[in-house]
Amino acid sequence: MIDQRALPGRFQILTARTPEDVARAIENMAIRGAPAIGAAAAYGLALAQKQGLDVNAVATRLRKTRPTGQNLFAAIDFVLSEVARGRSAVDAAETYAKTEIDRCLAIGRYGKRLIRDGMSILTHCNAGALATVDHGTVGAPLVAAHRAGVRFSVYVSETRPRLQGSRLTAWELAQEGIDHAIVVDGASGLLIQRGEVDLVLVGADRIAANGDTANKIGTYPKAVVAHAHGVPFYVAAPLTTIDFRARTGRAIPIEERDPREVLYVDETPLAPLGSVARNFAFDVTPAKYITGFVTDKGLLKPAELRGLRVKARG
Amino acid sequence: MIDQRALPGRFQILTARTPEDVARAIENMAIRGAPAIGAAAAYGLALAQKQGLDVNAVATRLRKTRPTGQNLFAAIDFVLSEVARGRSAVDAAETYAKTEIDRCLAIGRYGKRLIRDGMSILTHCNAGALATVDHGTVGAPLVAAHRAGVRFSVYVSETRPRLQGSRLTAWELAQEGIDHAIVVDGASGLLIQRGEVDLVLVGADRIAANGDTANKIGTYPKAVVAHAHGVPFYVAAPLTTIDFRARTGRAIPIEERDPREVLYVDETPLAPLGSVARNFAFDVTPAKYITGFVTDKGLLKPAELRGLRVKARG
Repeated sequence: MIDQRALPGRFQILTARTPEDVARAIENMAIRGAPAIGAAAAYGLALAQKQGLDVNAVATRLRKTRPTGQNLFAAIDFVLSEVARGRSAVDAAETYAKTEIDRCLAIGRYGKRLIRDGMSILTHCNAGALATVDHGTVGAPLVAAHRAGVRFSVYVSETRPRLQGSRLTAWELAQEGIDHAIVVDGASGLLIQRGEVDLVLVGADRIAANGDTANKIGTYPKAVVAHAHGVPFYVAAPLTTIDFRARTGRAIPIEERDPREVLYVDETPLAPLGSVARNFAFDVTPAKYITGFVTDKGLLKPAELRGLRVKARG
Repeated sequence: MIDQRALPGRFQILTARTPEDVARAIENMAIRGAPAIGAAAAYGLALAQKQGLDVNAVATRLRKTRPTGQNLFAAIDFVLSEVARGRSAVDAAETYAKTEIDRCLAIGRYGKRLIRDGMSILTHCNAGALATVDHGTVGAPLVAAHRAGVRFSVYVSETRPRLQGSRLTAWELAQEGIDHAIVVDGASGLLIQRGEVDLVLVGADRIAANGDTANKIGTYPKAVVAHAHGVPFYVAAPLTTIDFRARTGRAIPIEERDPREVLYVDETPLAPLGSVARNFAFDVTPAKYITGFVTDKGLLKPAELRGLRVKARG
């Protein structure tokens, strides 16, 4: 896998030789992005089976790596159920990864319709190819529109503390030749107020059954400001990101990470030595602030997610 | 003056020997904070007179250093009018600086009433002693309450790109022994939603006649989220921060600074080389999101500012 901690400075491949390597790569964010974490965990189970380890014990270990993203749990459940049916874990992981690619391509086809000539789009964190197996959730519509000749620009919110916006999204957009500018996370209010944002498009780590959406810390304030100014706010995610057991966003656990991520950038201290920091990795945007979801099954309103639940049960 | 670029790593005094030194210190933010900038400019005029330079020409130079903060212009106007009356510029500057200290102490007395036992207060940027001549605007109420034995804690928003929150406010609060934790700027939504913020208290760089308030970029999203959750949002500033000629916030110019402030922290790059960034230094919070102003003349509602204008004219 690509070691996302080294980007954009170095493009470095990290090889996980054991399931524990996979678990640590997820914990330390060498691999990150809810769909990419799911695929990595699926291959972690494949490694476990190949090495004659207890697949269920490894699944338990992998489930403990990061608490918020839904795709991790969906991927592990998928591989375990396939293994229970007698399929090999590596086959199941391959299927999972391929299906994720197809889902992103479908999101790209539906999401492309939202992007029109002259638009300025605000995004947050990274939900591009790096965050998925390929193409991305936010990334796929952007790339699809760009390749179709639509001219638009992107404001990339840098996304403290880990800077996935300036380090990963800006890098991906530069690779694709998509016009973009990096701004600090606090700039969303000014940009939206000035009419410089036509669409906010973000990814999701977990979506509750009612549409409340957990995504990178800093997403929720953008949604509230967009709502105050009547700017559409869309969430791009495959349906596998929906946790139908979570009735609302209150049921989504929010990971709190090492405060050093807030107090340092690489080796550079950002605060007096000995300072206390709190490092919440995600926030939850209530469904009422979400205009719609760009999914692999089309554009859906928050209220339409309930219908899917009935289908899933049926 | 204290070189605020060196904090919290080093406490370093910068001596301005010419008015041009003062102008550059304001531009490069060795001295920052709207009231502190005003006092520095006043002493810049004092230096000009002492060195036999054209005080009006120096005033023109100083006015061009930073466009948003009102106190810079108020201080220059005050010194020039005193000089026109035959007073020495150094005397006028001394009066201005002393008056600023008194204003902060008055803000402290009025603002202290907002702070009660067990409260958690969210602030942004730095409006403490460093940002003023002494005591601060946000800082004075915090210190006054703390010294009066009120137990409260502060969430310090780090304030990208220049990190005045984590580098300056956290340093000041640590000096005073006030309980605090640093968070990234995007964390305000989660904290307010969870009920972990009882009061938002920020400074101001310029207040329009209708109460619209320019402050550090990232203030406006906090105000909108606080409003959505019914959390009081107060602005602490002396009345000299009000620009009665600016009818609304639309008349306040927003400084755009060097994009390198967004793309680097010290020497550490935060984005791919060659990336484009936009670096807006301030945003404007509309009066409707402001619960009240903590001024040197008491706690005022936005609508009460108009009355002051009539008085100022009278």
